[in-house]
Amino acid sequence: MIDSLLPSFLRHENISRITDEGVFITDRRLLPFERKEVFCPDFSSVAAAIKDMVTQGGGPLEAALNALLLTYRKETERLDEAVSVLSAARPTNTTMKRELESVMARYYGGEDMERIIPSVFRRYDEMYDRISDIGERLIADGDGILTTCFPEHTFMLSIKKAALNGKRVSVYVPETRPYLQGAHLTEPCLREMGIRCFLITDGMPSHFMRSGKITKYMTAADLVLPSRHVVNKTGTLGNAIAAHYYHIPYYAFSVGVDDTKCYDDIIIEYRSGESIKELGGRKTAAEEAEAIYPCFDIIDPELVKGIITDGGVI
Amino acid sequence: MIDSLLPSFLRHENISRITDEGVFITDRRLLPFERKEVFCPDFSSVAAAIKDMVTQGGGPLEAALNALLLTYRKETERLDEAVSVLSAARPTNTTMKRELESVMARYYGGEDMERIIPSVFRRYDEMYDRISDIGERLIADGDGILTTCFPEHTFMLSIKKAALNGKRVSVYVPETRPYLQGAHLTEPCLREMGIRCFLITDGMPSHFMRSGKITKYMTAADLVLPSRHVVNKTGTLGNAIAAHYYHIPYYAFSVGVDDTKCYDDIIIEYRSGESIKELGGRKTAAEEAEAIYPCFDIIDPELVKGIITDGGVI
Repeated sequence: MIDSLLPSFLRHENISRITDEGVFITDRRLLPFERKEVFCPDFSSVAAAIKDMVTQGGGPLEAALNALLLTYRKETERLDEAVSVLSAARPTNTTMKRELESVMARYYGGEDMERIIPSVFRRYDEMYDRISDIGERLIADGDGILTTCFPEHTFMLSIKKAALNGKRVSVYVPETRPYLQGAHLTEPCLREMGIRCFLITDGMPSHFMRSGKITKYMTAADLVLPSRHVVNKTGTLGNAIAAHYYHIPYYAFSVGVDDTKCYDDIIIEYRSGESIKELGGRKTAAEEAEAIYPCFDIIDPELVKGIITDGGVI
Repeated sequence: MIDSLLPSFLRHENISRITDEGVFITDRRLLPFERKEVFCPDFSSVAAAIKDMVTQGGGPLEAALNALLLTYRKETERLDEAVSVLSAARPTNTTMKRELESVMARYYGGEDMERIIPSVFRRYDEMYDRISDIGERLIADGDGILTTCFPEHTFMLSIKKAALNGKRVSVYVPETRPYLQGAHLTEPCLREMGIRCFLITDGMPSHFMRSGKITKYMTAADLVLPSRHVVNKTGTLGNAIAAHYYHIPYYAFSVGVDDTKCYDDIIIEYRSGESIKELGGRKTAAEEAEAIYPCFDIIDPELVKGIITDGGVI
């Protein structure tokens, strides 16, 4: 149903797929230049791939669901181990952990794993469809929309639906260092959908806010807390502050507030600073440089105009 | 006098030098990986090198002064032409234009060009020394200082003098895409001077402001207007807004307010978006992507705590 609206990178088979051999995960680090899959024969290699950033955003959940189904088929006795190993692969992604645990609860409740996993995928598709209907209504004709990183289904569908409703929209896409998800994923997806979009560096958004070109700021959210704190990719906070300063509304798309977490539970992952010293294998800084890489930002509630959820804008 | 305090990249002979053959300009685009000079047999090749970003910041002025001296020695009749061609090579850099015109006024007033040019270099060295004394006094023991791009002499000398006075200082250095002056120039200079510094991406400064690690924001200024608007490298504005939000003072170093310009005169150069789609020859975005590159920000006076000039902090 939403498949025909989505850009190809976001269709299930291009994120992760399961076969008799194992789980295949599309390597997002190579997009858009190369389409290649990482083959994972078991759940621990899926967890390793998630850790290595082979996929990100909603990708780890899809890969982990497939890993769980694979484990069920091949080594049922290790299902609980699979859940804990997969959950630990991306600690900030509490949605993944919650979904895997809920799958196991249904499984222990007597449901068939072969039916549970597809039903989770279906539930997400339906939710993306509803959330993007809400997102679409926040977009006005003539909007210039800033995003950060790769905001995936809910954002892409909102933009696509707005365009289909005749709204002229352009999107400003920061490249999003160090992994360049903006340049590698967001820009090609928008272009494939026929949306006008401008690639910029991560330092430029405020320039276009000041000049009135950017009228809305919309991102995904890796995590939303009951306190309305948004956790998202590094760079999101700076743009949210600039948007606040220029009275531009900031909306974060969320597939659900995580009621199990409170502010003090947030663990901001620090990844290796080496990622900041290179780009696709090419050195960008001196060997001796000390680089630091906190990979998520916490955005305080006063900077967030609304969180776009399945239940409406909160 | 200041030479012993400066990191090697900022010593005159490593920026631009004149010989009997012509002007040599150190190619900053290759630093810190390679030290190579671009040879310019005449003023128009110096202008072309400036346009091509062989050097930036205060580099164009030094190269242009040498180009003027070269023209005087080799083709005196073309001096006026040299001034206009060199000035046009970097329209935002009004300091360069002003200095070249002032050299010509002195020359037409009867002074010897062989004495004028060295006197301009000397005047700058003395001014850097005085301005950095003022900058040093704004730095406190324990400060975490954010910068942007490559803030050169006044900033580097201020930090060095603070360290020599026993103040413990660390510097947060955004890599500064697309040309990575932060990673390629600022970080190596600070490290050479023995200053603790952290390389980060351009999206991260607000993260460290929020966590209290950054306590001051200090940059160079390509241009300061009588209205106190600061013009500096793209990315400066976003950080200034975040600093304002977190009540962190932002200081811009300036070698002089440009009284000849008013707000409406500012021409923000748009460079080719191709720079945003590559890094050192390696593609970072799809060929078809539309990238835009406004290379300077205008920072409104309410965001600037002080402009550090030869005459004090204004």
